[in-house]
Amino acid sequence: MHIKKDTKFLIVGLGLMGGSYAMALSKKGYTVYALSDKQQPLDYALKHKYIDKGSIEIDQKLIGDADIIIFALYPLTFLDWIKENASLISPGTIITDVTGVKIPIIEKIQTALPQEVEFIASHPMAGKEKYGIENSDDSIFGEANFLITPTQNNTQKAKEICQELGEILGFANIAFITPEDHDDVIAFLSQLTHCIAIALMNCNDEEHLKAYTGDSFRDLTRIAKINDQMWSELFLLNKDFLLKHINEFENELDKIKVTLIENDQDGLRKMMQKSTIRRSQFDKNK
Amino acid sequence: MHIKKDTKFLIVGLGLMGGSYAMALSKKGYTVYALSDKQQPLDYALKHKYIDKGSIEIDQKLIGDADIIIFALYPLTFLDWIKENASLISPGTIITDVTGVKIPIIEKIQTALPQEVEFIASHPMAGKEKYGIENSDDSIFGEANFLITPTQNNTQKAKEICQELGEILGFANIAFITPEDHDDVIAFLSQLTHCIAIALMNCNDEEHLKAYTGDSFRDLTRIAKINDQMWSELFLLNKDFLLKHINEFENELDKIKVTLIENDQDGLRKMMQKSTIRRSQFDKNK
Repeated sequence: MHIKKDTKFLIVGLGLMGGSYAMALSKKGYTVYALSDKQQPLDYALKHKYIDKGSIEIDQKLIGDADIIIFALYPLTFLDWIKENASLISPGTIITDVTGVKIPIIEKIQTALPQEVEFIASHPMAGKEKYGIENSDDSIFGEANFLITPTQNNTQKAKEICQELGEILGFANIAFITPEDHDDVIAFLSQLTHCIAIALMNCNDEEHLKAYTGDSFRDLTRIAKINDQMWSELFLLNKDFLLKHINEFENELDKIKVTLIENDQDGLRKMMQKSTIRRSQFDKNK
Repeated sequence: MHIKKDTKFLIVGLGLMGGSYAMALSKKGYTVYALSDKQQPLDYALKHKYIDKGSIEIDQKLIGDADIIIFALYPLTFLDWIKENASLISPGTIITDVTGVKIPIIEKIQTALPQEVEFIASHPMAGKEKYGIENSDDSIFGEANFLITPTQNNTQKAKEICQELGEILGFANIAFITPEDHDDVIAFLSQLTHCIAIALMNCNDEEHLKAYTGDSFRDLTRIAKINDQMWSELFLLNKDFLLKHINEFENELDKIKVTLIENDQDGLRKMMQKSTIRRSQFDKNK
């Protein structure tokens, strides 16, 4: 193990995800520092013993002391922070993140860092429809995937440290994937599904529908409750992959429309049989 | 109460829904008969005491004895059954159903029945991704809506009987709605959501995605496991309303695409804020 009992973590950003990381790491006995641009999350984290120390300032000592820094910021805020403060990070520090897109940030971050500071990107595929440190919950990691997206600039040691971090946080599954595959997969599995939920929730104004709703509509729109600042950044940063997947999805929906227009019951049944088989295989492999 | 302890029910069709009706009614002590075109569901229902008597034949005595007949058949099978056997039903019998579309069947059924037999249509908005009597489960009614769709041909007494049936079955909510509104609402809330799930499940062939899947994709594709014979009938019978709602949904998804193409973060955020508010209100009113 590279991560030792005395390894010091600094978490930058104390929202739902930063708070949940702090909660998990402090429970395991690690020293956890935090930076936040607001006092309230720091107070909350100190009160609940999620962190040992925290600062609302760019605290040079906290930054310099950290062995591992985890950035739990929105993507553009993360980029800005690194551009302004990278020089404060000590040589030998390992940096990782929680960002939901990878290609648009990895190279920019790696370029902006001092030579002996290494950024190994990762993405905890966990979350809630709520946000803020008050909703922190380290149990969200227990059934979730932790994706690590190394580039050729990353060392074996950094990859191992990031894997250890995923294990300490308690993720069900840890996988290595290229940044390109990550952004493609995320556009399909996560961003497209959120677009569908938003469109479904917004496309019909009939208030009285609420009275008749069944489980399927509730399931499909659960994620229509969305943090608009974070997700709009993620969608726009990943727009090429996302547009590709929206178009592929609409093409598939158009195939259903054609079977309806042509009264093609056989064609419709074949699509349903295909989706049934695919969804069943999918259950087994989860 | 019109429905008395000695009221005799006949259920035609012993699939998941017919079986669940039989289960609920027999538990409450009513006499329940059943007709099925297969022996196995009858044996299962008799063994589990869901029914008192059953027949694989068109049993004139069972049909003639029933006070209330519930048709739990696919829509076209229901229409065929009535055309062939309506004359066997005793005067004064009340008929209802479980069919997921209303306009395409109500008038045809009412026209085909003897004058003193009344059809009052209803739709239990409950179900599972499994089918067959072995999966019967009367607990699915406890959180579900029971929709009754009377026409001007229906008597007050039949409406009351149908409402009593919904109460006996244990539905959380019972509502009266016109057949037109029913088919429109169902096309949106139920059929469109199933189309979306099928399209999402079928639009991407990358097997390796399974390893990275989060909850949102699982939620949106749960109903992609679908009884293709039943749902293809329902989709085609209701195709005008369904096509309207698919088109409205695609238009809304296209608006998201435009914001992406134009890098319109404000526009994107407004859509997300709208869907968040709508989904939240929706939770409260459930």
